[in-house]
Amino acid sequence: MEVFIEPIGRLINEFSKLPGVGKKTAQRYAYRVINMSEGEARAFAEAIVNVKKKVRYCKICGNFTEEEICSVCATRDRSVICVVKEPKDVVALEKLHEFKGVYHVLHGVIDPINGVSPNDIRVKELLGRVKDGQVKEVIMATNPDVEGEATAMYIAKLLAPLGISVTRLAHGIPIGSELEYTDEVTLSRALLERKPI
Amino acid sequence: MEVFIEPIGRLINEFSKLPGVGKKTAQRYAYRVINMSEGEARAFAEAIVNVKKKVRYCKICGNFTEEEICSVCATRDRSVICVVKEPKDVVALEKLHEFKGVYHVLHGVIDPINGVSPNDIRVKELLGRVKDGQVKEVIMATNPDVEGEATAMYIAKLLAPLGISVTRLAHGIPIGSELEYTDEVTLSRALLERKPI
Repeated sequence: MEVFIEPIGRLINEFSKLPGVGKKTAQRYAYRVINMSEGEARAFAEAIVNVKKKVRYCKICGNFTEEEICSVCATRDRSVICVVKEPKDVVALEKLHEFKGVYHVLHGVIDPINGVSPNDIRVKELLGRVKDGQVKEVIMATNPDVEGEATAMYIAKLLAPLGISVTRLAHGIPIGSELEYTDEVTLSRALLERKPI
Repeated sequence: MEVFIEPIGRLINEFSKLPGVGKKTAQRYAYRVINMSEGEARAFAEAIVNVKKKVRYCKICGNFTEEEICSVCATRDRSVICVVKEPKDVVALEKLHEFKGVYHVLHGVIDPINGVSPNDIRVKELLGRVKDGQVKEVIMATNPDVEGEATAMYIAKLLAPLGISVTRLAHGIPIGSELEYTDEVTLSRALLERKPI
């Protein structure tokens, strides 16, 4: 890419590290930065450094926080824990404004093919939280894929002897979609888990 | 978006300013930054500030440069000037490694509907370059759209009295494409500008 002068080439290279960004897109982003005011560019750069400096993981749930303990763990009902794979799953659930409990972010799911064992994700920390006796329900909200299901099953088995109710988010036909266009796995699951009206 | 803590929300907001980046994509980019090492994040931030600090416009052609005069203007045949709309067009042409002349970046095209007159783009500067008598040919390489064509025509008329050869990039059927799928405007242009074999 010697057609770019060094500072532009370097910025294109940095933007290329973002997920799903190729050379062309990175180039467009770099040109946008060149056209920013100096103040705008500085604000952008500061936001990047700032996020690394200020964001850490909550000591209890593992979600992003600026404090030692996140605002969810600090203020909400700790008797219900919703277990998710990643911080972005917390965002998706929090947007509903419905769940009143707390979270536990695993930072991954069990995936033997890619060498991720239960020890590589925050399973031990979950067991530690549950053992204080205050927890009544653990909702497994890992994704409905092979690894997510396996992780949910694994954790459910670990929690069973402790007498805690372990639940799983419902699977089935998405609201507003049509039977005809629902994939077979989802449809057979919906049939299997049918409920009395 | 109060589901995000302040530093993350701020970074998402900054990424949203990039062209074609919505909230979801900005969120993915922000999470990528959080997962970077501190060194990586600092290098990213520095590349942004650096590009604003070091990149300026060549005094002759208007392309991006770190020096007063860009390396193309400093070293190449100044008797042929290729006129383009934007710096990214220079990149596209330089990738060919075929053109041996210099460039002139207009930083826009004449577009009366959006209030862009010839005085808003670098037409005056082009006339200044041409008047020294060294220039033999000006290649108009603005885009083949309404504004690009109009700009090419406008500049060609200005240069005509000076006895300089003004040329335009050829339009026609793209190599490798099929007649059936070529749009009508391109096809009729290709017919009009047919050449003897």
